[in-house]
Amino acid sequence: MAQVKGLTLGQLGEFGLIQRVARIFGRPSRPGLVQGIGDDAAVVKIGHNKALVYTTDMLIEDVHFSLKYEGFLDVGWKALAVNISDIASMGATPTWGVISVGVPVGIPVDNVDNLAQGVASLARKYQIGIIGGDTVKSPDRLVVNIALLGEAPANDLLFRHGASPGDALFVTNCVGEAAAGLEILRRQTADGRRQNNDKHLIHRYLRPEPRVKESVLIVKYKLASSMIDISDGLHISVSLLCQQSKVGAIIYLDKIPLNNQLSTINYQHALQLALSGGEDYELLFTVPQRKIKKALALFPHGWIGVITKDKAVKLLNPAGREVIIKKTGYEHFK
Amino acid sequence: MAQVKGLTLGQLGEFGLIQRVARIFGRPSRPGLVQGIGDDAAVVKIGHNKALVYTTDMLIEDVHFSLKYEGFLDVGWKALAVNISDIASMGATPTWGVISVGVPVGIPVDNVDNLAQGVASLARKYQIGIIGGDTVKSPDRLVVNIALLGEAPANDLLFRHGASPGDALFVTNCVGEAAAGLEILRRQTADGRRQNNDKHLIHRYLRPEPRVKESVLIVKYKLASSMIDISDGLHISVSLLCQQSKVGAIIYLDKIPLNNQLSTINYQHALQLALSGGEDYELLFTVPQRKIKKALALFPHGWIGVITKDKAVKLLNPAGREVIIKKTGYEHFK
Repeated sequence: MAQVKGLTLGQLGEFGLIQRVARIFGRPSRPGLVQGIGDDAAVVKIGHNKALVYTTDMLIEDVHFSLKYEGFLDVGWKALAVNISDIASMGATPTWGVISVGVPVGIPVDNVDNLAQGVASLARKYQIGIIGGDTVKSPDRLVVNIALLGEAPANDLLFRHGASPGDALFVTNCVGEAAAGLEILRRQTADGRRQNNDKHLIHRYLRPEPRVKESVLIVKYKLASSMIDISDGLHISVSLLCQQSKVGAIIYLDKIPLNNQLSTINYQHALQLALSGGEDYELLFTVPQRKIKKALALFPHGWIGVITKDKAVKLLNPAGREVIIKKTGYEHFK
Repeated sequence: MAQVKGLTLGQLGEFGLIQRVARIFGRPSRPGLVQGIGDDAAVVKIGHNKALVYTTDMLIEDVHFSLKYEGFLDVGWKALAVNISDIASMGATPTWGVISVGVPVGIPVDNVDNLAQGVASLARKYQIGIIGGDTVKSPDRLVVNIALLGEAPANDLLFRHGASPGDALFVTNCVGEAAAGLEILRRQTADGRRQNNDKHLIHRYLRPEPRVKESVLIVKYKLASSMIDISDGLHISVSLLCQQSKVGAIIYLDKIPLNNQLSTINYQHALQLALSGGEDYELLFTVPQRKIKKALALFPHGWIGVITKDKAVKLLNPAGREVIIKKTGYEHFK
């Protein structure tokens, strides 16, 4: 790795850093690993056709959230939601979590209570036990880390790899709503105004609902050949899935399910938010041809594209012409 | 909880906060929980006489470590060591870990490599697979969180509860060495001098060796009725173990194994470091009378006290007189 000496994190980016660190950790000598670093969650075999799924996510104040427009309840909710989404995107059921919180010393205890309530309310909803953790002081910023386990029959697991040319590309719901909600929150914080019809979008940003039910349906009807959550943005997530599956994709821009309110006001902007906004904890999955009918019955607005042999990810407009949009999305350090 | 409204974290302290948060999370509805919040690690049953052990620890720059006198390799090593210690103190074998790192953007990639190398070298030593994680940017301070799984036959597990009056109190090794090493590092950073005979103590602080081998022996010979690691300090750890076991203890001050060099120079200070210094990742365990002979054969300098029915923790000097030392040790927020 001598050739990259002196490289900065900004040049490497989050995805480059992950690959680099994964090489340092190497392949473990312990037997049982099914999926290591490089998917939404890791997978370990723990019995005959029984797999343990394992993920972790860290949220840092002023990077992942701002206490200017998010409450402690919201932060707690989201810290667990992002982890549940990773488990759901593997086709698994979330089970047990542990939480670490770095708390600035000056914070009233009530705020920590609210953070815990945010975690607890979502945990109860999905029967997740929060069974351990670590509480430490932080010099200034709030830091929350959750590690979450899930389980699944090994045969039910879905990975980023597995997509084949000809598979349809599906998404579980409207995309771009969370990013629109964040824009509204930031504007409101700046100018102090609040509009009633923004409630849905703000809620989509503050209290994302991980797609556990949808994951259960996808697994039950064996709809998918591969799956990923689109937390980093739709465009980048399609690319990550294609990379791991060694395929490409065409996304039909007019098929992307957008929020009506948003697309009526400014279609181009709504599309931009959908492609690169991130924070939508929807699932992106690929559907073999024989399953498309069933997938459409369950997700009538979900079909957004097709997997191709050619390894590029292309965006096509309704006229069938390729649209070049810089592939953005949230990547740390970039 | 209305009566504690307006309480500050400083008044509540880390242990008060943990109890408070545990109440908010409540007892999970999911079946299988053996041990929730309140021990060194959580325990879940995953098969006939098979248990999953689960812990997490967060290290924040300028709270748990200082890059002034610790390298990135040291930080990585310690981040995993503290977690392994929690698993070992349950009598379990560490297996799979996931790591989250919050990295200040300005840090050269080489430093992140070193951090990963520190984790990887200790992971390899104990056949632990680091199989997932999250890399995010941090506004200023380095934050490292590891969650670690372990496994054990359910019958082999050791908890903080389980000690009975009459049991002997044992510790695996010398205590207070890590705290002495930290003192030396701080002094060296201030005055720039370095002495050769400090190497052992500094190493004990920078590269703590989790007591996996000792844990294996304790389990193999069924020596212990309860166990805890003494990461927060010997005195406080005896209290925590006694609290969970609903017993008390007498610690014979002259029996505490101290570093010779330290105790020769200043016995009182060496004792203070041993009782409340923390960062010694030694194991504290209680031994039923019929097992004391075997325990002494394996840990000849380990016997430091006895469990009592009376719920206080008393420190006795060689004359048999009680010594009153304010119970200190590391507690966040206090």
